[in-house]
Amino acid sequence: MKKLMNSVGTILIDSLDGFVAAHGDILVLGDEHKFVRRKALKPGKVALISGGGSGHEPLHGGFVGHGMLDAACPGQVFTSPTPDQMLAAAQAVDTGAGCLFIVKNYEGDVMNFEMAAEMADNVATVITNDDVAVENSSYTTGRRGVAGTLVVEKIVGAAAEEGRDLAALKALGEKVNAATRSMGVALTSCTVPAAGKPTFDIGDDEMEFGVGIHGEPGRRRDKLKSADAIAEEIVHAIVADLGNAAQGEALLFVNGFGGTPAMELYVVYNSARKLLQAKGIRIARSLVGSYVTSLDMAGCSITVTMLDAETTKLWDAPVHTAALRWAM
Amino acid sequence: MKKLMNSVGTILIDSLDGFVAAHGDILVLGDEHKFVRRKALKPGKVALISGGGSGHEPLHGGFVGHGMLDAACPGQVFTSPTPDQMLAAAQAVDTGAGCLFIVKNYEGDVMNFEMAAEMADNVATVITNDDVAVENSSYTTGRRGVAGTLVVEKIVGAAAEEGRDLAALKALGEKVNAATRSMGVALTSCTVPAAGKPTFDIGDDEMEFGVGIHGEPGRRRDKLKSADAIAEEIVHAIVADLGNAAQGEALLFVNGFGGTPAMELYVVYNSARKLLQAKGIRIARSLVGSYVTSLDMAGCSITVTMLDAETTKLWDAPVHTAALRWAM
Repeated sequence: MKKLMNSVGTILIDSLDGFVAAHGDILVLGDEHKFVRRKALKPGKVALISGGGSGHEPLHGGFVGHGMLDAACPGQVFTSPTPDQMLAAAQAVDTGAGCLFIVKNYEGDVMNFEMAAEMADNVATVITNDDVAVENSSYTTGRRGVAGTLVVEKIVGAAAEEGRDLAALKALGEKVNAATRSMGVALTSCTVPAAGKPTFDIGDDEMEFGVGIHGEPGRRRDKLKSADAIAEEIVHAIVADLGNAAQGEALLFVNGFGGTPAMELYVVYNSARKLLQAKGIRIARSLVGSYVTSLDMAGCSITVTMLDAETTKLWDAPVHTAALRWAM
Repeated sequence: MKKLMNSVGTILIDSLDGFVAAHGDILVLGDEHKFVRRKALKPGKVALISGGGSGHEPLHGGFVGHGMLDAACPGQVFTSPTPDQMLAAAQAVDTGAGCLFIVKNYEGDVMNFEMAAEMADNVATVITNDDVAVENSSYTTGRRGVAGTLVVEKIVGAAAEEGRDLAALKALGEKVNAATRSMGVALTSCTVPAAGKPTFDIGDDEMEFGVGIHGEPGRRRDKLKSADAIAEEIVHAIVADLGNAAQGEALLFVNGFGGTPAMELYVVYNSARKLLQAKGIRIARSLVGSYVTSLDMAGCSITVTMLDAETTKLWDAPVHTAALRWAM
C-alpha cells in the first residue's frame, strides 16, 4: 500500500486537520473531529447536514459552506459516522428552523442518521439512491447513493439559502434525487488504509462495470473498452431508467474516482455529451472533476440530472465551499 | 496501459473537445485545436498566453478566463506546442496592448515560445523555474518550471485585469517566480499514452524524491516515508533555498499529480503547514488540489510563494476559469 500518510491510525485526523486549516475562512471543526461546520451560520435557515464514511473527499466536507451544507460528519474510511456525530452536528448548526439530513443509501448510514434523527428535534431526511448499476449491493438494500448526492446537496442548499422551510426542502431533495441517475466504471481497485491491500483484484485489461464507490461489484467484469463504448452503455442505462423523463435539459456530471486525471474525465464527458445530444437531451449545465471519490480508485462515473427552470436556477445560485465555488 | 480514452491518436483532441464543450461559458477553441482562448476578450488589456505539453491538466487551459490567462496552447502529451500555435493564439487575443508569454523552463517550450515571440509583435516573456529539486534535468537547463507556474499565472493575471502594462507585468511575473519554490515526490510513474508503459519503474515500497512533472528523476530514489518526513525534507529544501526571503507571510500550495486523492493531499498540507509555522512563516493563503498534474502519476508537490501586500491582494482578486474560480 502506497499512501501519503503518517499512519493508518492517523490518516483521517491528519487529513481533517489539514482540511480545516486550509479552509479556515469557510469551516470550523467540531469537538473530537465529530463534524465540520460552516464558520458563519445563518439564523433562521434550515440547516443541511450530510456525512458518511470518509474516503469520498471532497464529499461531504468539501461541500460545507454558503449555498450548500451547514455541516458534514466524517466516519472512518468507508464506515458510517456514529449517531452522536450527527446529533452533535445538529445541535451545533440548528438555528431554530430544523435540520435536513441528506443521506446516501447505505444501510449503516441510513440506520445511524435515523437514530440521530430520533434523538434530535425537528429533523427531516432525504435519502439519495441515484446509482442505476444494481438493485441491491454489498452494503445496500435498494440502489446505492453515489455522485448524484452532490447535485442534491447543491440544489437543496441553494433553496435553503433562499429561506425555504424543512418540508419544502425535503420535497425538493426528493424531486432532485428522482431526476438523477448515475453509473460508474473502475479501472483499478481502491485500497482502504486499514486493509492495506486492494479491495478487489482486477486484470490489466479489465474494468468493473457499474462499480460502487466503495469498490462494490457492479454489473459485470469486462474487458476495458473505449471511452465511447463505456459512455454509450452508461448513457443507455441512465436514459432507459429515466424513461419518459429523459427529455429536455440536463446537467451532465462526469466524476473522477480519485486516481483518474482530468484529461481522461474530459474524454468521457465528450463521449457522453454527444450521446445525450443524439438522444435529444440538451446539456444545459456541466460539471467535470473528482468530487465523489473512492480513495485512489481509477475510473469515473456519469451522472445525469434532468433540470427544469427551478432546479437550473438553484444550480446556478452562488456557492462558496472548499470544493465548489461560484457566483453567477 | 489503462486509460479512459478512444485511442492514443485521439485522446488529446477528444479531451480538448470535451473541455471546451463543458466550459463553453468561458472558453472557445482555436482552429485546428491550436489553442483555447477566453470567450470574452477585454480590449486594451495585455494578453496573457501560456502553454506547454499536455498531460498537466488543468494547467494551462483550465486557467484561461477572467483574472488569469487569455489563451493556452496545448502541445501533444509532454511535448512542446509549436510556434505557430503561440503565434495563432497571440493574433487571436492581442487587443493592442501586447502579449505576455508565461513559459515553464523546459528547452522545447522556451525555444518554441521564443520563435513565436520573434514572429509576433510586442511580446514579453516570463520563464518560471520554481523546482528546487535539481539544477538541470532531462529536458531542462537550469531549474524546471512546475506547480509554481499556477501562482505566477494567477497573480499576473489579476494585475493584467487591473490594466497594468506589459513591462510592469513581466516585472511582476519575475518577482512572483523569484518568491516561489516547489518540490515533488512520486509514488508511482505516469504512463504516456503513446509510450503505452510507465515512464519509470518504481518498487512497491519506493518513492522518487524530487520528481519532475514528466516523471523526470529527482534527487534520489528512496524508501517511501511518512507524510511528515516527506514534508519536512521538502519544506527544509524550500526554506533553505529561499534564504533570507523565508520570513513573513506565504501561500502554501499542495498539488496532486493526478493519481492521488484529496484525503492524502490534505495530510501533506497538514504536515507542511506545521513545519512552516514552526519556522516562523505565517500561512496567509492556501491551495490544495490537483492543478499541475503528470497524467496519472501518484504523488504531490509542495509550493511556497512568499507574499507581500501587493501579491496577496492580486491572489485574492476575482478569478473565473474552469479550474480556479472565486470572487473575494
